[in-house]
Amino acid sequence: MSSLHGGDIYRNKTSYDFSVSLNPLGCPEEILSAVKKAADRISEYPDIEQERARVSIADFYGIESENVLCSNGASELLMAIANMKRPKKALLTAPSFYGYEYALNAIAGCEITYHYLLEKDDFRVTKDILDEIEKAPDIVFLCNPNNPTGQAIDGELLNQIIDICEEKDILLVLDECFQELSDTAVSMTERAVKSRNLILVKAFTKLFSIPGVRLGFAIASKEMIDRLRRQLPEWNISVFAEESVAAACGMRDHIEKTRAVIGTERKYLLSEFESIGIRAFASDSNFILFKTDEEIYDPLCQRGILIRDCSNFAGLGKGFYRIGIKEHKCNVELIDKLKEVLHGA
Amino acid sequence: MSSLHGGDIYRNKTSYDFSVSLNPLGCPEEILSAVKKAADRISEYPDIEQERARVSIADFYGIESENVLCSNGASELLMAIANMKRPKKALLTAPSFYGYEYALNAIAGCEITYHYLLEKDDFRVTKDILDEIEKAPDIVFLCNPNNPTGQAIDGELLNQIIDICEEKDILLVLDECFQELSDTAVSMTERAVKSRNLILVKAFTKLFSIPGVRLGFAIASKEMIDRLRRQLPEWNISVFAEESVAAACGMRDHIEKTRAVIGTERKYLLSEFESIGIRAFASDSNFILFKTDEEIYDPLCQRGILIRDCSNFAGLGKGFYRIGIKEHKCNVELIDKLKEVLHGA
Repeated sequence: MSSLHGGDIYRNKTSYDFSVSLNPLGCPEEILSAVKKAADRISEYPDIEQERARVSIADFYGIESENVLCSNGASELLMAIANMKRPKKALLTAPSFYGYEYALNAIAGCEITYHYLLEKDDFRVTKDILDEIEKAPDIVFLCNPNNPTGQAIDGELLNQIIDICEEKDILLVLDECFQELSDTAVSMTERAVKSRNLILVKAFTKLFSIPGVRLGFAIASKEMIDRLRRQLPEWNISVFAEESVAAACGMRDHIEKTRAVIGTERKYLLSEFESIGIRAFASDSNFILFKTDEEIYDPLCQRGILIRDCSNFAGLGKGFYRIGIKEHKCNVELIDKLKEVLHGA
Repeated sequence: MSSLHGGDIYRNKTSYDFSVSLNPLGCPEEILSAVKKAADRISEYPDIEQERARVSIADFYGIESENVLCSNGASELLMAIANMKRPKKALLTAPSFYGYEYALNAIAGCEITYHYLLEKDDFRVTKDILDEIEKAPDIVFLCNPNNPTGQAIDGELLNQIIDICEEKDILLVLDECFQELSDTAVSMTERAVKSRNLILVKAFTKLFSIPGVRLGFAIASKEMIDRLRRQLPEWNISVFAEESVAAACGMRDHIEKTRAVIGTERKYLLSEFESIGIRAFASDSNFILFKTDEEIYDPLCQRGILIRDCSNFAGLGKGFYRIGIKEHKCNVELIDKLKEVLHGA
């Protein structure tokens, strides 16, 4: 039985969880040991000002700590943004991450318009979206690179989108949770700290493979950060999150290594998909969307491999699946099992 | 410099933090080791259904898991309740925990009425509150025992309050974060699972001295839990919280031991306060509110002792302070330093 989200290892017996899109190298030892040491602080309230965490992230990105706000995962930020703005009209791309809809549907009275990304474009965001943005919704959510399709948005186009949002006072929420794992997606950090209309939603969840900790953060203007802070509970990040941020911000090398592995493995997987006759879409990220008419979900699950059934994404449908790129031996296992399922090897 | 909240050890050099009201025996070793082991799950998403955590808590209280919802600390629940209800009129007691106001002020357009608790009653909630509730606000927040004053609400009166709230369709939010640490405060668990109008806000934060983990939970009817769930982000509790819940729910003995220590130490502190001429208020909880005209905050802080300046609580004012009851040797240290400050020993 497939889920609305990836990572549901609680109701599936799983040897390899390809349904999530985490760093294939896993969590660095440095973060793991920092988190273990955080247990000594279990009887302390976390810092309500998030001082050390915000400074670490600010230094990491070369910005000021006033432009940073930490959250209990990116999902907490999405809810806070919806509550802060309480938009009447929202624009989402389809397909994209379900979390935007989830947050918008929690507030009453928001009408969602979908801008459909097309299979013929490999689901890339094109200039066609500008017409939708010109209609001036209250809020626009974009994901760069886009989940679950993997495409980065062209930097020039993205700057154009931000220009229109500033001109028309539209709040643009740009999800960069996968940005550091991509060679091509350009971060809008510099524009975000200056803009009145742009919030970057980021997280160390995928980048350092730490979904268990819950750690996201926003980058935006000081004014926006202050407004957003007001929508979050007082002690919203744990001492485990505090310690993992501090450790993660010293791990720049890990990102370089990770990107190299993703590049090599993406090439391997795409070529294998092609050779077994599965249509996979171009990806600028650490996950791959593909399409097949064969029944593969349950048979893979029975073989201990959990993948993401994407049939419940608006703009996709039956037969679309996503896999996170893992280390080579796991990817080989996936391809082997996939061949077994398809060809009954 | 005093803070809006206790526990600000980040901007105060502190040997003894009496500003927080945590279990004087600290965090049990069993929870600490469970949390350390949770680090092995850092690369797993927490269970979006909170299945194990909800079942553990339900078993602990002898209720169904459908009546339980876990949150990232009690503060996350308060924000979620405010967003769910979006009340126009709210009734709070003054003094009480600042978090209710914080949550209500995050939503626009809520008018807050304060029902003032009186010094002559040792700040106990009396039948006078019934007149205010009869006026049918949209929401009422009560804390039992009350923070920062320490008094439990009489069980019969509380049942009367719940009756009126049901009759007039008023949402009653009953904060029981300190209930298990009190010998006298009666839990309303049984009524909460049946009522359409009652939400219990609870947490293991104080009970097991684990504010660093962030773990709260609501107990309410299944329908209320479902509505509340919708106001929380998807993966709102960490794997550290998951593991600490499971361990904490096996620690019933620890609570008995804790209550005995609190009873003995409360008696000691109240008698010492009396002997040094400080007016302390009767307490049914693990903290004590007291009043003095002497300047004690900064001098204690300089001696490494942080207490809670309560002058910023509505209904209190300059000269009110709160201390959490700690283990005997710490309490002796507090009294010694207090004598030094007051009498220049």
